[in-house]
Amino acid sequence: MSDLTNEDVYGLIDTAIDFKNGKKSEIGQDKFAMNLFFENSTRTKSSFQVAEMKLGMKEIAFEASTSSTTKGESLYDTVKTVESIGASVAVIRHPQDKYYEELINNNMNIHIINGGDGTGQHPSQSLLDLMTIYEHYGHFDGLKVGIIGDLSHSRVAHSNAEILTRLGAEVSFGGLDSWYTDEFQGIGSHMSVDELCQEMDVVMLLRVQHERLSSEENQNFSKEDYFNTYGMDMRRVEMMKPDAMIMHPAPVNRGVEIADDVVECNKSYIFPQMTNGVYMRMAMIEAVLEGAKIDSETNQERQAVLR
Amino acid sequence: MSDLTNEDVYGLIDTAIDFKNGKKSEIGQDKFAMNLFFENSTRTKSSFQVAEMKLGMKEIAFEASTSSTTKGESLYDTVKTVESIGASVAVIRHPQDKYYEELINNNMNIHIINGGDGTGQHPSQSLLDLMTIYEHYGHFDGLKVGIIGDLSHSRVAHSNAEILTRLGAEVSFGGLDSWYTDEFQGIGSHMSVDELCQEMDVVMLLRVQHERLSSEENQNFSKEDYFNTYGMDMRRVEMMKPDAMIMHPAPVNRGVEIADDVVECNKSYIFPQMTNGVYMRMAMIEAVLEGAKIDSETNQERQAVLR
Amino acid sequence: MSDLTNEDVYGLIDTAIDFKNGKKSEIGQDKFAMNLFFENSTRTKSSFQVAEMKLGMKEIAFEASTSSTTKGESLYDTVKTVESIGASVAVIRHPQDKYYEELINNNMNIHIINGGDGTGQHPSQSLLDLMTIYEHYGHFDGLKVGIIGDLSHSRVAHSNAEILTRLGAEVSFGGLDSWYTDEFQGIGSHMSVDELCQEMDVVMLLRVQHERLSSEENQNFSKEDYFNTYGMDMRRVEMMKPDAMIMHPAPVNRGVEIADDVVECNKSYIFPQMTNGVYMRMAMIEAVLEGAKIDSETNQERQAVLR
Repeated sequence: MSDLTNEDVYGLIDTAIDFKNGKKSEIGQDKFAMNLFFENSTRTKSSFQVAEMKLGMKEIAFEASTSSTTKGESLYDTVKTVESIGASVAVIRHPQDKYYEELINNNMNIHIINGGDGTGQHPSQSLLDLMTIYEHYGHFDGLKVGIIGDLSHSRVAHSNAEILTRLGAEVSFGGLDSWYTDEFQGIGSHMSVDELCQEMDVVMLLRVQHERLSSEENQNFSKEDYFNTYGMDMRRVEMMKPDAMIMHPAPVNRGVEIADDVVECNKSYIFPQMTNGVYMRMAMIEAVLEGAKIDSETNQERQAVLR
Repeated sequence: MSDLTNEDVYGLIDTAIDFKNGKKSEIGQDKFAMNLFFENSTRTKSSFQVAEMKLGMKEIAFEASTSSTTKGESLYDTVKTVESIGASVAVIRHPQDKYYEELINNNMNIHIINGGDGTGQHPSQSLLDLMTIYEHYGHFDGLKVGIIGDLSHSRVAHSNAEILTRLGAEVSFGGLDSWYTDEFQGIGSHMSVDELCQEMDVVMLLRVQHERLSSEENQNFSKEDYFNTYGMDMRRVEMMKPDAMIMHPAPVNRGVEIADDVVECNKSYIFPQMTNGVYMRMAMIEAVLEGAKIDSETNQERQAVLR
Repeated sequence: MSDLTNEDVYGLIDTAIDFKNGKKSEIGQDKFAMNLFFENSTRTKSSFQVAEMKLGMKEIAFEASTSSTTKGESLYDTVKTVESIGASVAVIRHPQDKYYEELINNNMNIHIINGGDGTGQHPSQSLLDLMTIYEHYGHFDGLKVGIIGDLSHSRVAHSNAEILTRLGAEVSFGGLDSWYTDEFQGIGSHMSVDELCQEMDVVMLLRVQHERLSSEENQNFSKEDYFNTYGMDMRRVEMMKPDAMIMHPAPVNRGVEIADDVVECNKSYIFPQMTNGVYMRMAMIEAVLEGAKIDSETNQERQAVLR
């Protein structure tokens, strides 16, 4: 995300909205994509699959649990294999931060799209969030955005905060004090959830990722306490500005970050975010494929653009 | 199955036979299907995949073991996700009886086809059974149909018995007395397997589902005893009417419900049933997609039609 | 491999090279393939998938771990099911040697392609190896080929040695003395790795398959010792003839059979082998599908041709 200029971001959003409005592209015709997900996911993997097929690509199936990585093959060799059998694009989610660094070199002739690395980045999620906000407000200037949740374990919190600030929004945070670490203190202030609901134009909830908490943290965690202090319920929805948005990257923990009846309320953009995700991923894939066409000299640079 | 009128059933059979005779349809062009199987299956899942592709649809891959349901996501949220990323049809097999009831509401804009729920229904199997009988005899009136096996654990025994009776056939049952419960006593009589073989036009064998028996039941179960008392061997095949049919939903337990040399004998329709399954599933998918086209007002009703 | 005549082999190589040079074929249009891999694989399965799709075929997904084989279904019944739902081609990898023998009979109307059986054969790997050598040298006559590694556990060592000899090459072997068993002694001599590197036109390394070694063998195995005695490092690469080739079926164990910096050196054909694999598999699939067209009478014979 940090490599993308503001123009890059606006360009991707525009293209994604064009796709949503019916723009067709056959840029993927006769091309193959492979989605290498080394961590579980329904949403992101499926969304990339649909995006690829809508661009005319065919998917080569990949299951981490039955692949040669179980025979000890390195990620580099797996991706080099994917390239060798003819894939043009590899979408990768991997538990290791910045796994992609070793993949970007002059010998690798395949486009890598980061589908999430460790606790690092999740650019397609960040971009679909931006698209959903832009679609609603038409701009980012002066928008007040509150991010509530486990900032430290989130792939999107930091990069969303950074890029929203860069695009002119004002970002604040909510949740446990211990989650509001130095890197976030440098970006925006910390508020109670009630205050955020009253003042924000956008409230982005993060998922409590029990699988990333320590066993001690999980033991001390009370769903009821979390929900009462930081959860979004109808009382808080009613505090919000008439036009304000509730967002969440999903899957939601109903009754933890968000009440059952809020998930599909009229301020919630949770499922529209998923719909936008397909169009944003089409824009991303088109960008890397077009990048290759425009200038094969700067291929390596382009290849890296969406990490 | 109980929501379908006799006309609905005959309509689906006619369409399925048309497909088998070469009818083409592109009703699925540019549409996506997702097959969510939360229980193991080769046959049903693959058969739906082929049916979808023959109608021009594209499949979004789904593996229960690596999906977000492993992060605790509810079935409702998973299906809502599938809808949000653009699937038109979700085929679902799930261990919970009537899992679909919570999915049929005004907020859900996707066609649900039941690929088997708990010990409840398995409508595509019932319909392909009906198609296979109808293709052979040209009618159901007065046909004598015997169903042999673990009626109580079968997804198809009860609904097949009910709909065959409604269509004019006379249904009898075989197998352990303890399996011949009240609900089946109200439909037809209980006979020995020898009697059934002599008198029936169709003998439907059910699979012994060891995975659904209690550990006590499994311990007391003798394959040899079962085969001798209830199994279909060549001696019994020779008792049958010249034109009679042997059916089984598969996978068969060779040497338990059925002898090795009976599986592909000339009275057996076990593999033809599978072939018919693809065409029946095409008819079902076409029906839900056409339902949507004809009248979006009655969408919810149509959506429910194939549960 | 032993059923193929020299003409068959040259024919497949020519067709594969034609495909590599851009030849198109729509022989698979409206046909379905199913890849039944009962052992893990990225390379072979993906390569067949791409080959199928490039010929216009559609793939029916198969995951051994969630199929009805987990309910005890036999391989025969699984493949008969695949045939019944309409697949034209089944590519099978199975841990049992000669699993295919029970599948080739008059009742089975589907093309079986062997994707690897037990420690038996792996014909698509053998053929892509031959293609890669032929592409480089233009012939096999008098070529000196050395095969280094665990000959006894290799699917390709024996059939490669046999067919290369038949095509006019002279085959030698390297590796532990205990691996150089009777069957290989009848084909060619045994040399040190240094000698092989100096004299051979092609050095084929085999993968140390830890999953096929006994626990005792694994315990006594030292990566460092193996690498020093039998591994390919830059010192040995520099001993080789200027035009000589290094081959490996992959996945490689870096630092065991081969040094890191040798994998992509200019003598290495490891990744080009994978690229060729797709085109060879296209040639194989086209051959079985064309075989069916040319003469359905000899169908059974043709069906067996690529086992």
